[in-house]
Amino acid sequence: MINDKPQCHCGVFGIFGIEDPALFTYYGLHALQHRGQEASGIITASKSDSGKTKFNIHKGIGLVSEVFSNAEVFEKKLPGFSSIGHNRYSTTGASDSEKNIQPFTVNYRMGNLAIAHNGQLTNADIIRKELIDDGAIFQTTSDTEVILHLIARCKLENQVDQILEALRKVEGAYSILILTDDKLIAARDPNGFRPLAIGKIHDSFVVASETCAFDINRIDYLRDVEPGELIVIDSDTKNIEDLKSHKINLTETEKKHCVFEFIYFSRPDSRIFGTNVDKIRRKLGKVLASHHPVYPDKPDEKVIVISVPDSSNTVAMGYQQQLEKMDINSKHEIGLIRSHYIGRTFITPGQGNREIGVRIKFNTVKGVLEDKKVVLIDDSIVRGTTSRQLVKLIREAGARSIHIRISSPPILHPCYYGMDFPSEEELIANRFKGDITKIEEYLGVESLEFMTQDQMLEAMVDHTPDNFCTACFSGNYPVKVNTNFEKSLYEV
Amino acid sequence: MINDKPQCHCGVFGIFGIEDPALFTYYGLHALQHRGQEASGIITASKSDSGKTKFNIHKGIGLVSEVFSNAEVFEKKLPGFSSIGHNRYSTTGASDSEKNIQPFTVNYRMGNLAIAHNGQLTNADIIRKELIDDGAIFQTTSDTEVILHLIARCKLENQVDQILEALRKVEGAYSILILTDDKLIAARDPNGFRPLAIGKIHDSFVVASETCAFDINRIDYLRDVEPGELIVIDSDTKNIEDLKSHKINLTETEKKHCVFEFIYFSRPDSRIFGTNVDKIRRKLGKVLASHHPVYPDKPDEKVIVISVPDSSNTVAMGYQQQLEKMDINSKHEIGLIRSHYIGRTFITPGQGNREIGVRIKFNTVKGVLEDKKVVLIDDSIVRGTTSRQLVKLIREAGARSIHIRISSPPILHPCYYGMDFPSEEELIANRFKGDITKIEEYLGVESLEFMTQDQMLEAMVDHTPDNFCTACFSGNYPVKVNTNFEKSLYEV
Amino acid sequence: MINDKPQCHCGVFGIFGIEDPALFTYYGLHALQHRGQEASGIITASKSDSGKTKFNIHKGIGLVSEVFSNAEVFEKKLPGFSSIGHNRYSTTGASDSEKNIQPFTVNYRMGNLAIAHNGQLTNADIIRKELIDDGAIFQTTSDTEVILHLIARCKLENQVDQILEALRKVEGAYSILILTDDKLIAARDPNGFRPLAIGKIHDSFVVASETCAFDINRIDYLRDVEPGELIVIDSDTKNIEDLKSHKINLTETEKKHCVFEFIYFSRPDSRIFGTNVDKIRRKLGKVLASHHPVYPDKPDEKVIVISVPDSSNTVAMGYQQQLEKMDINSKHEIGLIRSHYIGRTFITPGQGNREIGVRIKFNTVKGVLEDKKVVLIDDSIVRGTTSRQLVKLIREAGARSIHIRISSPPILHPCYYGMDFPSEEELIANRFKGDITKIEEYLGVESLEFMTQDQMLEAMVDHTPDNFCTACFSGNYPVKVNTNFEKSLYEV
Amino acid sequence: MINDKPQCHCGVFGIFGIEDPALFTYYGLHALQHRGQEASGIITASKSDSGKTKFNIHKGIGLVSEVFSNAEVFEKKLPGFSSIGHNRYSTTGASDSEKNIQPFTVNYRMGNLAIAHNGQLTNADIIRKELIDDGAIFQTTSDTEVILHLIARCKLENQVDQILEALRKVEGAYSILILTDDKLIAARDPNGFRPLAIGKIHDSFVVASETCAFDINRIDYLRDVEPGELIVIDSDTKNIEDLKSHKINLTETEKKHCVFEFIYFSRPDSRIFGTNVDKIRRKLGKVLASHHPVYPDKPDEKVIVISVPDSSNTVAMGYQQQLEKMDINSKHEIGLIRSHYIGRTFITPGQGNREIGVRIKFNTVKGVLEDKKVVLIDDSIVRGTTSRQLVKLIREAGARSIHIRISSPPILHPCYYGMDFPSEEELIANRFKGDITKIEEYLGVESLEFMTQDQMLEAMVDHTPDNFCTACFSGNYPVKVNTNFEKSLYEV
Repeated sequence: MINDKPQCHCGVFGIFGIEDPALFTYYGLHALQHRGQEASGIITASKSDSGKTKFNIHKGIGLVSEVFSNAEVFEKKLPGFSSIGHNRYSTTGASDSEKNIQPFTVNYRMGNLAIAHNGQLTNADIIRKELIDDGAIFQTTSDTEVILHLIARCKLENQVDQILEALRKVEGAYSILILTDDKLIAARDPNGFRPLAIGKIHDSFVVASETCAFDINRIDYLRDVEPGELIVIDSDTKNIEDLKSHKINLTETEKKHCVFEFIYFSRPDSRIFGTNVDKIRRKLGKVLASHHPVYPDKPDEKVIVISVPDSSNTVAMGYQQQLEKMDINSKHEIGLIRSHYIGRTFITPGQGNREIGVRIKFNTVKGVLEDKKVVLIDDSIVRGTTSRQLVKLIREAGARSIHIRISSPPILHPCYYGMDFPSEEELIANRFKGDITKIEEYLGVESLEFMTQDQMLEAMVDHTPDNFCTACFSGNYPVKVNTNFEKSLYEV
Repeated sequence: MINDKPQCHCGVFGIFGIEDPALFTYYGLHALQHRGQEASGIITASKSDSGKTKFNIHKGIGLVSEVFSNAEVFEKKLPGFSSIGHNRYSTTGASDSEKNIQPFTVNYRMGNLAIAHNGQLTNADIIRKELIDDGAIFQTTSDTEVILHLIARCKLENQVDQILEALRKVEGAYSILILTDDKLIAARDPNGFRPLAIGKIHDSFVVASETCAFDINRIDYLRDVEPGELIVIDSDTKNIEDLKSHKINLTETEKKHCVFEFIYFSRPDSRIFGTNVDKIRRKLGKVLASHHPVYPDKPDEKVIVISVPDSSNTVAMGYQQQLEKMDINSKHEIGLIRSHYIGRTFITPGQGNREIGVRIKFNTVKGVLEDKKVVLIDDSIVRGTTSRQLVKLIREAGARSIHIRISSPPILHPCYYGMDFPSEEELIANRFKGDITKIEEYLGVESLEFMTQDQMLEAMVDHTPDNFCTACFSGNYPVKVNTNFEKSLYEV
Repeated sequence: MINDKPQCHCGVFGIFGIEDPALFTYYGLHALQHRGQEASGIITASKSDSGKTKFNIHKGIGLVSEVFSNAEVFEKKLPGFSSIGHNRYSTTGASDSEKNIQPFTVNYRMGNLAIAHNGQLTNADIIRKELIDDGAIFQTTSDTEVILHLIARCKLENQVDQILEALRKVEGAYSILILTDDKLIAARDPNGFRPLAIGKIHDSFVVASETCAFDINRIDYLRDVEPGELIVIDSDTKNIEDLKSHKINLTETEKKHCVFEFIYFSRPDSRIFGTNVDKIRRKLGKVLASHHPVYPDKPDEKVIVISVPDSSNTVAMGYQQQLEKMDINSKHEIGLIRSHYIGRTFITPGQGNREIGVRIKFNTVKGVLEDKKVVLIDDSIVRGTTSRQLVKLIREAGARSIHIRISSPPILHPCYYGMDFPSEEELIANRFKGDITKIEEYLGVESLEFMTQDQMLEAMVDHTPDNFCTACFSGNYPVKVNTNFEKSLYEV
Repeated sequence: MINDKPQCHCGVFGIFGIEDPALFTYYGLHALQHRGQEASGIITASKSDSGKTKFNIHKGIGLVSEVFSNAEVFEKKLPGFSSIGHNRYSTTGASDSEKNIQPFTVNYRMGNLAIAHNGQLTNADIIRKELIDDGAIFQTTSDTEVILHLIARCKLENQVDQILEALRKVEGAYSILILTDDKLIAARDPNGFRPLAIGKIHDSFVVASETCAFDINRIDYLRDVEPGELIVIDSDTKNIEDLKSHKINLTETEKKHCVFEFIYFSRPDSRIFGTNVDKIRRKLGKVLASHHPVYPDKPDEKVIVISVPDSSNTVAMGYQQQLEKMDINSKHEIGLIRSHYIGRTFITPGQGNREIGVRIKFNTVKGVLEDKKVVLIDDSIVRGTTSRQLVKLIREAGARSIHIRISSPPILHPCYYGMDFPSEEELIANRFKGDITKIEEYLGVESLEFMTQDQMLEAMVDHTPDNFCTACFSGNYPVKVNTNFEKSLYEV
């Protein structure tokens, strides 16, 4: 109930040619914690006494800080010169299985190889079946493992060619890092669904899901891995022009960035798809206000604009600034206080008959809400259960009327590219067949407005509207999806 | 380095005469988590088969959610009809000792008795020595244990009289809850240093450090336990007029609330000392702006007001609103993003040579800071190390000039009433002997302004200035302190 | 069901004036593990930088090897020059409470003091009540804590006098070690119920429950602490004549050693009460055989003598040797194999309908039992449930007839001096009112013989029969017992 | 140092067509604990709601009782109708890797398949390299995984045929259990190195390493899986004649049982290779005595025969009975007491300068050794370090002279079929180049005698001498071994 937000995919971080690579990866994964809180893992490559490359690994269930709670892990278990790491939120694959924690590592005929994947493949099940029929033994229920088998079975002799051949066979969303005995390889699917950025520190190159993972490490941002691009970093890569770039897709493909990365998922201090997230969020607030303003009821009254913290803070700021520009008497206030002590494992005993619900996460600031006309800004509504409880809380604090404004359109369809929504039947927009009046009634608010798809894309400055995937709003899937495939294959 | 804030005392919660009292206490302690993150404990009183009252206990090191991570604890270990709980941040007593986790419980000649204490006693060491010389055996290094011994040794026959006699012997700061076989007793020191509020749900009475612990449980706030008041709740207490009130101090004593509860420590959604915290904080921002405004350098420029999240958010809002009222061109922005994944046990390996510092907790939003004149609002500066690093971060994000405004005066003296500052030598205001120019230089800012004591007290609406303890700013200690007492007594 | 033996008390070990005293204590407690498997603790005294004595402690639930599973504990937590340790099997006091793990330590007006106690006091409850009425605060439900309070409250100025005064007030069984800032004190109750031996290594003195704790440490045995003796070891104690000896009891008291220490409880390789345990056990077997022989049914047949391993192995050996001496055709065989992988926490899921029972601990060696007349030697029968299952097992292995011989009399009465029997109603001898025929029937054997009390005492070579407590057989309690005292006092 | 015995392989248990199969496996693995104490695992097959077979798994590091310490595991995690389990002692493969804990399970084109293996393959590295070159991805460093890949890649359509084809490719020692969606398959290598027995309970069939795993579960022993036999158990297998038997090897192969299973490794209460272990051990003692007796020094003296408990107890008994038959005046005594509290994780801090050594495991019974001529019976000597320390202990207890008699020949060569000896250089017989006088000197004994290979085989009643592998004594390896294969392949 508390996590009534589209939960998403994963975060990846990789670095090559530096002392203590695991420490950079650790801090990078910490900065990417919002992209996956279920499990975390780091792999490093080091030289053994015999001069061979050895892979070292530490993975576990929990937050980065829980999995890496012992400083000795870094000194004793994770030496080396290169590293990749992964934060996980499960999309496919049973979430409880420790086997599914990435990065995955194998030893195959070309040596060691480790992989960390953000995204979701759409033809993994078909390839998996083919591989199994050919005698492949799968160890996990993860999409990602098919890529390993495709690489291991490729008869080509050059490792980069093996990887290119493997990636040309898979479809869907992937921002992927591969560590080998002597290389760090990064690749992004031709549509560029998920972000992936290249950075540099001293002579070393870094790749990460978002630039916030660079900032914590004082790494400079260079550019993004382009959609459909595979880059190779090795000991010869000293300058940006040394980056070896390969094209994965042989024909041209249109960019289809996940719009939810801007709306909700990425951190506001990150730069993704070439634009600051914070900038888009403020713009979303402004466009939302211009199309869906709320006016005061009386001459001297100020409309109170509050956000659902923290993800909607910037949108609310933009919304109120636009109201002001439109000379609508208003004030931005902190009306909800959020508790940050709710960890992964917080339990709510006895909550059934107690209506604790959102109260463990939010409390109202009575002074700012009492007898006020309140605009509640949120980035999205999924099931609507949390929103409904928040409305009740705000009402109890004395708000005279409550008006919800959402900085995205109603979600109507599932995502097959790495975003985790509840089942279609549970989506509030489907439950009420898009009837806004009924949703207002269910939520208990005086008014509710979503952005239209066009309004939302209007806020995506620096981008043409066609460059975004809007499948969850429109049902237009840019990469075809096989929804009939026998699910039981995954039951291991 | 990260916790470069005055760390403080503890939170207490008690409830009497209700089903599942431990659940109320659990949620209440969760809401009071900011008052102590080191350890947590709950005690309940239940009836055994023989009709006698039995005390049940569960305590541990960690956050409330860590100590109570198993729902079975409530069903199996904590049945009963009344309960008290405690969140701990150690002030005196070695912090690593599990023995010091409250509530403490004893079995003495009048039956069971448990105690939870927020505050710090100033004559505990003297009383402790007297008791030890008389054959008392101490189990902890905590101040609080002397109260237990004073009660157990009191020759009076009435339990409430025993407690009153004990409390009349101790001096300093205490907001205290005592659970007995058939009563819940709450008491507050004559100066009222720490808050303590009374609430009611159905026919049951509740006492807690802050009202946010009521909100989460849908408990109604009634009134505060008055300074110098001891109240008794038992099975006859059904209405507010049934509350039995006793006077602890026989002569009149002046109120001396801890002003830091308003400035920094309590939650903005709580009501303490009779006033909403959020209201005082906004007022602090306004007074701060009116005395210490920052003007734009150029005609069309807007001064950017940002806060150190989350504790200074409301102050920053008040500050910018006042600037606006003063027609100073300005904008409130979110310039720092705070990570909420830094738990109690986050480690920072290799940070020595890495300058990770505040980067694990804060990142800048480049777009809003670049080439701007920035006002950074904070509630207090203790050592100054964190502020200095934040300034560096903001500078790296491109700020043209940085102006710090603090919503309290410089801290110069230790607190003996429950607030935990670093040693006097470490306080930045002492290090630079109050020379603001030198502090500006150290922090690397264009300007720095503190509030004066009078300005700060001007913001304490609903209160007369004399009602606050300002010892940490002024050195005027309202309750005398024996600083020479042999510390080694506590070394167990 | 598996532990169908009288479970007993505790083991103690202390050492003074040596490097790494905790290591000696650790190995000593390991050798004394059979005396208590529930919890273990070690306390050391070390000098702090200021020259004061500091007490260091490590305790926990579990076997010695479980509580001390980390070698760093010794280096980092347990430095010093003297140490005492304790293995616990709970007699009084709730077994699940970590508070009750000994040694107990306190800081009182004479400095630090720690105590480790083997035995059980008979007037602890009366003294406890008096102390509580006088304002003492108890932290545990253990007998032992009353001694601490008596010492702390004693007005005498000399610490040894304080301890003597305290011990003169308590009655019952105690072999006790006390560690102070500069002394190791050992005391044994006037009846000498439990063993306590003095050893020496280099210039250092050691005290332990059994001599097996000396052997593992290459410590030489000197003599026993005498019944009613208190000895003081300090930095002046270099030779045996330096041991300061004090008399606890002012009038003469008869020795009353616990006969079960010889029969079952102590290790066969120990020397207690001045005699090798193994010697007494073999003698018990011989006396048992001479009074209760088993004859073969046919001329060439050999009676097969087997034991319940491991505690009855020596008795069985003595029994068969005596049969041989009596020209009774017989053979000692290993008929039962015991599993040693059953730790403290072994679970037996689904055993209800599965009759796993003793099978998880014992299996038969079919080849030696098939078609044989078998004598099963055991040291005692308590409930009889295990014996009954063993008989069934032996029968299934093909034994033609089974004859049980027990090296002690029937147990009819509870022990108040530290041995833990089941309730009187559960004792098999009581259930069948001493009717041997009915017990034979219940166990399913062809014959059963116990030793009489006189026969048993006949085997106690080197001792006069009067020197033993036989209360559990005869009901003659050498120290009066108050069985009516309100038990609920202990319910903390 | 303590485990100075040949450590061996593993134990397996499987059951088909019964309620609660995991419970049978749990108790069976407990009975087989001596065959591997490092890790344990159970897999069950159950029907999912859709009627498909689902595999359930629980594995972990530690003893059976440690891995299965929670009864809920059985109810919640391990439902089903069939099960296999494995106790592990690592032979090849890094022992610290959790990945290597068996049973292994995979999902391949024919469904689920799990495998548990006792033994060691001699051509695993060669096959592994071939498979890797062909694109196979290995997850463990275990021999056993090659069998899985061979099965998964087999193009035959019948699952049993696939398994037969796979087993025909591997060489070496294996007693193997395979669980599939609807079958339990058991197979034993053509030489029959390791034991494997078939049992029956009600209508269900069971397979286990030793019969002691049947006894604990009241399962009846039927017969052994024959060398080179693969048997198939499914839902049609109700009677012994329903067991489907397949021949693995197409040509005849000689039986080569591991003689160490009789000498030391199997439990004395088990029946393996068709004979009771206890019977062979007693016979070994008798043959040893007849060839290597020890005579008393004086007319009335009795030679004292003691064993190193517990593995040599039966041999010592046989030895002394034979001495008696030979009219050599002698007595069997318990001279060494063994501690059973030394778990897997017992630490020996400070032992370097303390000579704790065997003292943590053994203590002497002084009374039986003092001034005696002692024969110490042991089953084998590997490094000799433990024996040397035991001799020292016995000498300290006052033995006049010490004579070691060993119930096996000197070990000179490594085992490649699943027994784990130290390196050849460490073997005492190699160190002293077989010079018995020098070994006597090293051990500090008056005399030492091993059995010759012929004497040892003379004791193997019911068997012809040729039916045993004696490679570790003679260097004659019945299955060829490739010792040059690149070891680094296994470094994952």
